[in-house]
Amino acid sequence: MECGLLFSGGKDSSLAALLLDGFYDVTLVTAHFGFTGDWEYAGEAAEALGFAFDHVQMDEEVADEAVERMHEDGFPRAGIQAVHEAALETVAAEYDVVADGTRRDDRVPTISRAVAQSLEDRHGVDYVAPLSGFGRGAVDRLVATHLIVESGPSEEIPKGDYETELRERIRQRWGTEAVATVFPEHEQTRVVGRARSRAKRETSE
Amino acid sequence: MECGLLFSGGKDSSLAALLLDGFYDVTLVTAHFGFTGDWEYAGEAAEALGFAFDHVQMDEEVADEAVERMHEDGFPRAGIQAVHEAALETVAAEYDVVADGTRRDDRVPTISRAVAQSLEDRHGVDYVAPLSGFGRGAVDRLVATHLIVESGPSEEIPKGDYETELRERIRQRWGTEAVATVFPEHEQTRVVGRARSRAKRETSE
Repeated sequence: MECGLLFSGGKDSSLAALLLDGFYDVTLVTAHFGFTGDWEYAGEAAEALGFAFDHVQMDEEVADEAVERMHEDGFPRAGIQAVHEAALETVAAEYDVVADGTRRDDRVPTISRAVAQSLEDRHGVDYVAPLSGFGRGAVDRLVATHLIVESGPSEEIPKGDYETELRERIRQRWGTEAVATVFPEHEQTRVVGRARSRAKRETSE
Repeated sequence: MECGLLFSGGKDSSLAALLLDGFYDVTLVTAHFGFTGDWEYAGEAAEALGFAFDHVQMDEEVADEAVERMHEDGFPRAGIQAVHEAALETVAAEYDVVADGTRRDDRVPTISRAVAQSLEDRHGVDYVAPLSGFGRGAVDRLVATHLIVESGPSEEIPKGDYETELRERIRQRWGTEAVATVFPEHEQTRVVGRARSRAKRETSE
């Protein structure tokens, strides 16, 4: 079955891809708005991992509503959640199975059982979240043995997906200060390849 | 890392094993009470899947408390939940990573984020539930392509894990009628092998 996995180029969605490999025909799909060319970073990461890559463009209105909400709130949670759900809807229209890299401990985005069921029923798809049964520690340990990762602050490690564009949109409308207010600094990761242990596994099988 | 995956011989825990294969050194672990020899069915299923197998014995007190609760309630939910948590505790004492086959849509057993975190903190382990991001439809479709399964009523397809023993304990104490009252009939599955598509995947890798 054709599975479109929402992909940022970061460690979580990359590990999700490895977990689904062999169970579905996985395409890594980056959802964006077309404001910047940052989705190409995700394409490079997908290539480094050896997966097919696709990108889908969401409506500008989704971005505008999200950044207005984020600016009003002073934090990104509700805006990110809305954009993530819109991205899932977009991918669900094109694939048999839609997936993402949400973890057990994620506060946002988080897809409840009800939202998952609704997505599945309306689109006739399966929604799968292979990391939703893994906590932060388990994810970090699996990433360390299976992926080669670069990490750093968000300005230096731009995410391939919608987050970088939302930051840019906020900067355009309300200035650089507003970006720092809405998005407290946190470390981003970018995956640049599979670790040797993974390659060894494949060879030995 | 050594992962002990709670294993009944049924389709959910078997599919969970396939998902974790290659990410951990997976041992399929059947938790039981020693009232019957039914755990051996799980051992046969583990062998058919090509995984290492182990069985751990829980305290009789856990079974007694559970069946008293189930008999009082008239349904098995709280008793099964308590036994499942006790089984996770037992496995967590012996492995680096403890896993089970709970699905997104399971009503019981279900391991909340808080219970997972507590298990991890107290035992210094990771708890992973690889199917917790998969709904019933997705699980059924993956089972159909990756596993060979026998299914039927519980009397004909005994589960390898604690459930069969709990049924037997109830029968001994309150008679056959009580078993039927507490456990409304539902279909059980027993895994007898991997499907060809899975074998093909391994060969082609």
